[in-house]
Amino acid sequence: MSKKEFVKDIPLKNENFSSWYTSVVRKAELSDYTSLKGCMVIKPYGFALWENIKNTLDNKFKATGHKNAYFPLFIPENLLKKEAEHVEGFAPEVAWVTHGGNEELEERLAIRPTSEAIICSIYSSWVKSYRDLPILINQWANVVRWEKVTRLFLRTTEFLWQEGHTVHRTAKEAEEETLRMLDVYIELLEKDLAIPVIPGEKTEREKFAGALRTYSVEALMGDGKALQAGTSHNLGQHFAKVFNIKFLDEDQIEKYAWQTSWGVSTRLIGAVIMVHGDDYGLKLPPKIAPIQVVIVPIFRKNNKDAVLKEADRIKALLAPNFRVELDIREEYTPGWKFNEWELKGVPLRIELGPRDIENKSVVLVRRDTREKNVYTMENLEEQVGKLLNNIQENMFLQAKKFLDDNTRIIEDYELFKKEIEENKGFIIAPWCGGSECEKNIKTETKATIRNIPFKKIGKKGKCIYCGKETELYVYFARSY
Amino acid sequence: MSKKEFVKDIPLKNENFSSWYTSVVRKAELSDYTSLKGCMVIKPYGFALWENIKNTLDNKFKATGHKNAYFPLFIPENLLKKEAEHVEGFAPEVAWVTHGGNEELEERLAIRPTSEAIICSIYSSWVKSYRDLPILINQWANVVRWEKVTRLFLRTTEFLWQEGHTVHRTAKEAEEETLRMLDVYIELLEKDLAIPVIPGEKTEREKFAGALRTYSVEALMGDGKALQAGTSHNLGQHFAKVFNIKFLDEDQIEKYAWQTSWGVSTRLIGAVIMVHGDDYGLKLPPKIAPIQVVIVPIFRKNNKDAVLKEADRIKALLAPNFRVELDIREEYTPGWKFNEWELKGVPLRIELGPRDIENKSVVLVRRDTREKNVYTMENLEEQVGKLLNNIQENMFLQAKKFLDDNTRIIEDYELFKKEIEENKGFIIAPWCGGSECEKNIKTETKATIRNIPFKKIGKKGKCIYCGKETELYVYFARSY
Repeated sequence: MSKKEFVKDIPLKNENFSSWYTSVVRKAELSDYTSLKGCMVIKPYGFALWENIKNTLDNKFKATGHKNAYFPLFIPENLLKKEAEHVEGFAPEVAWVTHGGNEELEERLAIRPTSEAIICSIYSSWVKSYRDLPILINQWANVVRWEKVTRLFLRTTEFLWQEGHTVHRTAKEAEEETLRMLDVYIELLEKDLAIPVIPGEKTEREKFAGALRTYSVEALMGDGKALQAGTSHNLGQHFAKVFNIKFLDEDQIEKYAWQTSWGVSTRLIGAVIMVHGDDYGLKLPPKIAPIQVVIVPIFRKNNKDAVLKEADRIKALLAPNFRVELDIREEYTPGWKFNEWELKGVPLRIELGPRDIENKSVVLVRRDTREKNVYTMENLEEQVGKLLNNIQENMFLQAKKFLDDNTRIIEDYELFKKEIEENKGFIIAPWCGGSECEKNIKTETKATIRNIPFKKIGKKGKCIYCGKETELYVYFARSY
Repeated sequence: MSKKEFVKDIPLKNENFSSWYTSVVRKAELSDYTSLKGCMVIKPYGFALWENIKNTLDNKFKATGHKNAYFPLFIPENLLKKEAEHVEGFAPEVAWVTHGGNEELEERLAIRPTSEAIICSIYSSWVKSYRDLPILINQWANVVRWEKVTRLFLRTTEFLWQEGHTVHRTAKEAEEETLRMLDVYIELLEKDLAIPVIPGEKTEREKFAGALRTYSVEALMGDGKALQAGTSHNLGQHFAKVFNIKFLDEDQIEKYAWQTSWGVSTRLIGAVIMVHGDDYGLKLPPKIAPIQVVIVPIFRKNNKDAVLKEADRIKALLAPNFRVELDIREEYTPGWKFNEWELKGVPLRIELGPRDIENKSVVLVRRDTREKNVYTMENLEEQVGKLLNNIQENMFLQAKKFLDDNTRIIEDYELFKKEIEENKGFIIAPWCGGSECEKNIKTETKATIRNIPFKKIGKKGKCIYCGKETELYVYFARSY
């Protein structure tokens, strides 16, 4: 059955990436817009994907000594205003509550766009002694940022995320924590979501409002635009000083604490779609796929019972180790189902007909390569496990190849402009470190510095904009 | 060590229940107030308890065919106003967003006090055919109700909960779902939280604003006041009609759908505290306790290494099957730790000293009875498992006994008033079914009808207020 015959046809990825994206999100039933401008509903299939990402990450947080807690949704205006850079960065996109229970409030309440202000105000009463440190807390929550232009999962007025907020005794510990959590994100992205990333430090212009330093992991989407997939901030003592988070140290001297914060959001779902998806729809990495294996039985009236019985047996066989679904709907043809499960990105499909049962075999179809092979029934569990591992690895390698193929070093500004316009992707270019050059490049090319990579290129060059000598080679790209 | 010596002393439960409660919540580090009126922070220990309740319940939802999703935080005013009874019930306690991103909004947005309005408006576009039904969706979310008088976990401006929202083809299916989910709550409360409940139907006056019928599970707190622990609503076609949720049935006739909604909240944590707690603090049922077993090593300088080594070994032995913590803090004495872990309600404590190691034995102390016994090292895992099961059962039986001891049938109004005032607890009394009598009784005694129990008393009587003959015997109590 050709793609054209399929009822849920989607635009071609390379012809119109943006409408391909929205189409995949909606037709795979991940999420949809609502009557509320900029607000999405996350549908069960999309939410199951989020739950898998969330649980995977939550285990990593707990393994690194963090605990979850929950802080208020509201931030009184005076608290949000305490840290000058912070309020400047976030105030323009805040939703304000002005009335509660029929009465006008004395002070407006911001709905958290991020929780540093409210959490720091609470931490200031928790921290008294060096014995109270470190505080290693994470929160899973909804946040609201009043966005003008929105796109499902990537930029919506309300979204779900996690935000870690930690407090430490020394600058060194805070820096270690900031980098440790960036490592957790790298592991999540690369090992679980099969998305290769560029880790590095944000420039002054691009760092988190209120942070001392921001680190990020940057990924490359299928259309050659970059996506900031996660950030980890060393807040220094900026918030501790304005929120008065002080402790009596072992040496009996009162000191301001050192802090970090770090977060990833439902935006990661957008990254998974845009990195792995193709003209057939979604392609989910096995580790986080809500359904890892779908069984599609093929039968006629006269052999229906026998086929369904065997399909049930296979489901029961695989269920203890895999997330498996048996599709017994009779209102759709097998061909229609193949297309639908491909659209929904299920990594592995088992096709089972009467001939297969006779031959004690099954047909397994990989979503990543769309390869179709016959396997004997023997060792089916083992085969499925192997194939899923293989798919996970292959998806990472494919994405890594795309990243490498679309990353190049450019040292000439004219060529830079041409490349950014025509080929997108990452451009590694020398930069003097100056904010003026960074700003001018952005204005002229819409490309920003994604980050200053940890992995140095090891040579000297001249700033692509001003020509000043520099050892800094940084990642530029247009981005989401 | 007597309770008086303990640094974290709390008021006696029977002398001042309300201040005992707040003291336990705060000193056991479950939650605390914030500078935001009526908003609480849920601290890591309290949140771990919530996570265990949440995961337990989420598994039950999934086992009954439900999936999770996520709907917007905001409800435009016109949507909230569609169902007349619903808005009347909730509008007085709504927080309103009037400004977003520096601009005044054209329409005010309510922060969800419950999500029927926004979810129904979305469901109306999802439901077209009988094939789309049933929709069985649950959401874990934060909600906001502008409360005047607040109490940690029991009534706060913002709280966490789950809300199930289902759509069905027939009235019968909706009623079955409503009762199925009430059963899920009964199981959660009785089997996992060890809290016996009275299931039944709410009166017209007390039902959910907008529902056809509301069922509830009612529990009895340690001070003799009732707590509504969970509710399940049959919404009939009330919302379907105003939100236009229609489907083409198999008979080609367009019909309005039938709906249910049901929820429990972080209030359950309050119930656990108030049902099980005692003068020593919290008492957690093993099934949901964040820490099931705490090991307190007892050592001096000369045997520290040996004791800690053995404590480590025991921890490693128990860790695969139990949530176990080893308390190696050196700034506190063992006695201080015993008190602290009792305050925090850990079901089982292992005391381990050099003498125990010599004897190949351990001391196990149950939190529920505070019984202390020596056990041989052999079969420790099995012993711990048995004791935890035993504690779980015993906690339920204790609570059941308290419930039974504080529930009585009363058929005389003077005695009713005296009992409600002096002994509190549940009073089963005959009631004519009239709203006037119900209202007058509430005004005169502050007691409300908690519910009309499923389990009938099987006799006739006369309405305790108006004297009219009736077969209805209902549960009255003062409540939270």
